[in-house]
Amino acid sequence: MPPRFHAPHLTVDADQLTLDGEEARHLTRVLRLGAGAELRVFDGRGLEREAVVEAAGRGVVALRLGRRVNAARELPFALTLVQAVLKGDAMDGIVRDATMLGVTAIQPIVTDRSELSIATLERRDRRERWQRIAISSAKQCRRAVVPAVVSARGLADALERSRGSTMLMLTEPSAGVAGPPVCAGDRIPAGAHVFVFAGPEGGWSEQEISQAAQAGARFVTLGDRTLRAEAVALIALPVLLFAWGEL
Amino acid sequence: MPPRFHAPHLTVDADQLTLDGEEARHLTRVLRLGAGAELRVFDGRGLEREAVVEAAGRGVVALRLGRRVNAARELPFALTLVQAVLKGDAMDGIVRDATMLGVTAIQPIVTDRSELSIATLERRDRRERWQRIAISSAKQCRRAVVPAVVSARGLADALERSRGSTMLMLTEPSAGVAGPPVCAGDRIPAGAHVFVFAGPEGGWSEQEISQAAQAGARFVTLGDRTLRAEAVALIALPVLLFAWGEL
Repeated sequence: MPPRFHAPHLTVDADQLTLDGEEARHLTRVLRLGAGAELRVFDGRGLEREAVVEAAGRGVVALRLGRRVNAARELPFALTLVQAVLKGDAMDGIVRDATMLGVTAIQPIVTDRSELSIATLERRDRRERWQRIAISSAKQCRRAVVPAVVSARGLADALERSRGSTMLMLTEPSAGVAGPPVCAGDRIPAGAHVFVFAGPEGGWSEQEISQAAQAGARFVTLGDRTLRAEAVALIALPVLLFAWGEL
Repeated sequence: MPPRFHAPHLTVDADQLTLDGEEARHLTRVLRLGAGAELRVFDGRGLEREAVVEAAGRGVVALRLGRRVNAARELPFALTLVQAVLKGDAMDGIVRDATMLGVTAIQPIVTDRSELSIATLERRDRRERWQRIAISSAKQCRRAVVPAVVSARGLADALERSRGSTMLMLTEPSAGVAGPPVCAGDRIPAGAHVFVFAGPEGGWSEQEISQAAQAGARFVTLGDRTLRAEAVALIALPVLLFAWGEL
């Protein structure tokens, strides 16, 4: 399989393209590719084309573009993972895996039991870091779409923005608010937008549970064991996709 | 929720129990519990009882045992994850998460594309390490059963030992050997034994695929994206459990 590079400016009909920055460095220094190397470039929105390296210099790589290739299939609906920011590097793995599983956007949120504030996340440029991880994951798993990692907000704000769409809030068995079980055969209409909410290490507060209920969220509890907060999205997303006939 | 401790010698009818070693250290030094603290002890085979600390000394803790409590529900069949040993610490996370997901045993295997040999694994006491991680994960996720982590063996040996049982080999889309899709409504009979085989970073070799086919394994491919080897079991096990009506 040829290596893949992210080129947001790729178009359907151009003959040539220049890679620079991170992507050029990856091509020349990590993969050590040079003139004649065959690869693929994708724009992060679903377009993917063949390409050949014409010249590779310091931090700049000139490509000759070839035919358009069929990109990996995407979900027929939009799927946003609304993930409470976790401690340490745990979000890195979640962003990487959610990208691999096909989400179309990632909305980090700060909740009652989160240990970080929105201001701290912004000061540390976390959104930019997570966006880079999403790009890197898309390259590896061969998606031509890079999920947008949007700015962190509070739960109430995130609930408000998803109002009217399908909202699934993942809850622990101990929360005691499980809704109807997820059923194979549930279908999400093409073009719909689904928001899946995953909580922080300490779970949702009671107030958050009632806020979500008022906003129209459906509660989903998977199994009767306590799952690690880091693993919740990685466990729930494939099960939901399978139930919806999309895995 | 009271903290939980692993006590392999716990019985149904004893009044007292002594914890030592790792568990006593966890109780006194990490959680800093002393006389009067309420907790639970489980034997790793499904028995769980209430207990109160009577005395906590250096490395030894005396407990008074209370009533038996209902342990977390276990699967009605045996489920062994046969996992190709991965690089670095990746197996640690797999053992931890597979325990949380309810497997009853973990069989590490060395495959054609594995980077470590059985001898290296034994010299580094990896089995003992993974068994400790399984115990720790069971404590956290409130299972009273600790999956046995058995000694590493080769794939052929593992296939031979699971012959006659349900064998599912997880394969990448690029392997081109997908069997019938996993269907919701597939049921595993109570008391049966299912073996789920997950491969190494580089995937199964062609020879391994044909070995498995000859041994009667069914090939399962989840989705059409390339999944990270580290994430394969964590994605596949919940989907299989959901399909079988066990999540």
